[in-house]
Amino acid sequence: MTPEVLLRQYKEQIEAALLQDAHKGQAAGLYEPIEYLLRLGGKRLRPAMVLAACAAVKGEVEKAMPAALAVEVFHNFSLMHDDIMDEAPLRRGQQTVHEKWDSNTAILSGDAMLVQAYQHLAKCESKHLPQLLELFNATALEVCEGQQLDMEFEQRSDVTIDAYLEMIRLKTSVLLACSIQIGMLIAGASEEQQKRGYQFGLEAGLAFQLQDDYLDAFGDPEHFGKQIGGDILCDKKTFLYLTCMAKANPSQLVQLDAWIGNSSDPATKVAEVKGLFIATGAKEELREQMQFHYEKALEALDVLELEGEGRALFNYLAELVHMRQA
Amino acid sequence: MTPEVLLRQYKEQIEAALLQDAHKGQAAGLYEPIEYLLRLGGKRLRPAMVLAACAAVKGEVEKAMPAALAVEVFHNFSLMHDDIMDEAPLRRGQQTVHEKWDSNTAILSGDAMLVQAYQHLAKCESKHLPQLLELFNATALEVCEGQQLDMEFEQRSDVTIDAYLEMIRLKTSVLLACSIQIGMLIAGASEEQQKRGYQFGLEAGLAFQLQDDYLDAFGDPEHFGKQIGGDILCDKKTFLYLTCMAKANPSQLVQLDAWIGNSSDPATKVAEVKGLFIATGAKEELREQMQFHYEKALEALDVLELEGEGRALFNYLAELVHMRQA
Repeated sequence: MTPEVLLRQYKEQIEAALLQDAHKGQAAGLYEPIEYLLRLGGKRLRPAMVLAACAAVKGEVEKAMPAALAVEVFHNFSLMHDDIMDEAPLRRGQQTVHEKWDSNTAILSGDAMLVQAYQHLAKCESKHLPQLLELFNATALEVCEGQQLDMEFEQRSDVTIDAYLEMIRLKTSVLLACSIQIGMLIAGASEEQQKRGYQFGLEAGLAFQLQDDYLDAFGDPEHFGKQIGGDILCDKKTFLYLTCMAKANPSQLVQLDAWIGNSSDPATKVAEVKGLFIATGAKEELREQMQFHYEKALEALDVLELEGEGRALFNYLAELVHMRQA
Repeated sequence: MTPEVLLRQYKEQIEAALLQDAHKGQAAGLYEPIEYLLRLGGKRLRPAMVLAACAAVKGEVEKAMPAALAVEVFHNFSLMHDDIMDEAPLRRGQQTVHEKWDSNTAILSGDAMLVQAYQHLAKCESKHLPQLLELFNATALEVCEGQQLDMEFEQRSDVTIDAYLEMIRLKTSVLLACSIQIGMLIAGASEEQQKRGYQFGLEAGLAFQLQDDYLDAFGDPEHFGKQIGGDILCDKKTFLYLTCMAKANPSQLVQLDAWIGNSSDPATKVAEVKGLFIATGAKEELREQMQFHYEKALEALDVLELEGEGRALFNYLAELVHMRQA
């Protein structure tokens, strides 16, 4: 089976299990928003990575399914709450939960989702529970820290590129890294092997998130699901923006400054700021950073010493991150 | 050692452990509100019940401490989020987290707290983890369901007394019941014994919450921490209110209706509505309900067949709920 077919199969299995488990308790109003968000779809990349990592080291994939569901439900919980904080109107092209219902509903249903993530995790073999909980809890807190830093950066004008990279490591990469490690842990891989898997996920995650920054400005509107230039329009301090600020000459700085807080002509703003990203070399620098983390992921892959299908699967995951257009 | 002294000792041990563990990660802004809320104090009734239940069946109390902390941190997480939803300005006489910081901070720090509750729980002996997680997760979801029903009841005019009792069972009692069961579980008590402990906690919890309704209207302002009549002023559909509605004669119903949504003269409103609670027999009915659940708690205590200090401790817990003035 090719990695592509295998991952598609995983996605289908995950979605069937996710929605089958959509718990109905006594308060239907608590559970409807959860099911709504889970049904909006998504790539299911994180849970697929749990299963793929388990398979790659010859573990029994079905034993990793509860943990895969835990990771996906956790991810969706964080989206539900982040969307409130970011006042996002849309998620995957549909109304966000706090827009369709209200903020209180999104807070409370999100809380219930976080508990449900632990319900899934608790279904893993009990011998793995102490390690799984330690890893999952530490990762969950880091994801919260990442979101906290992201919010704080909006109010700060002294954000460095290193601080930005640390923020995206926490907000995005650690959960991908954790997904890989969880899959390997359940498969019974050595601690050393798990650490290498984590490292692969971390580097792939950084490449993934930087790719996200890139696509937001330079993606193909046909493939990219969101509006091109969304980050530019809300003056988000992305890698492109921070690098552009750092590399701009005085005249470019004046041009960039003039667009900050000014979205009276969105199309021109996006075009002009993208021009500055290119002229200052920020776009090129971002491509180099993406390539750097992609190569670090490949290095981590090398020391993982996977064979056959496992190797093919991880190579495919690395390419998926590297080549993605959406 | 008398139960009173023992519980005071537990409270001190819990507070020391709670604050010692106030984790500092990379984002100080995430953890400050958590420490702030934990430092506001409180009776620490739930974690004390975990320890007391463990002691009452001759378990090693120190082994129950991580679970006690999990319960207390979970309880405070739910307060942080409920206060946002209820737009509460004060908690224990101090500013709520969303007032002192903002809603986004309270959402995110609350999320981190929920994760920290699981971090505490994960420190329990691994042989207990599957059962502890199952109980804790189920209880946590029920608490969310209780809050959901509480919010829905505000918008509904058809809330029955049974539905109200079910709501307070979920929102308050199950966590007290869970606290008792957790302590017994860790002490190695039989499942049968754990169930009886849970039942005691559930009945005591119902008595406790009904007492809360009672004190809100008829408490002694010197002992009761909150403003007397708070529920009346916001037209909260409490046991008193719902019973008053159900028992009122046509003229009393007209008087009650006239006060709903009208807080132009708070002192008169509180006095008049309290008068109606008495005249309709709602106050008396509430006292009977409290007594009923108190007695059910004592019945559960009887079948627990505790001896010596354990029995004294549980009797004291029952009295604490029964006699409380604040």
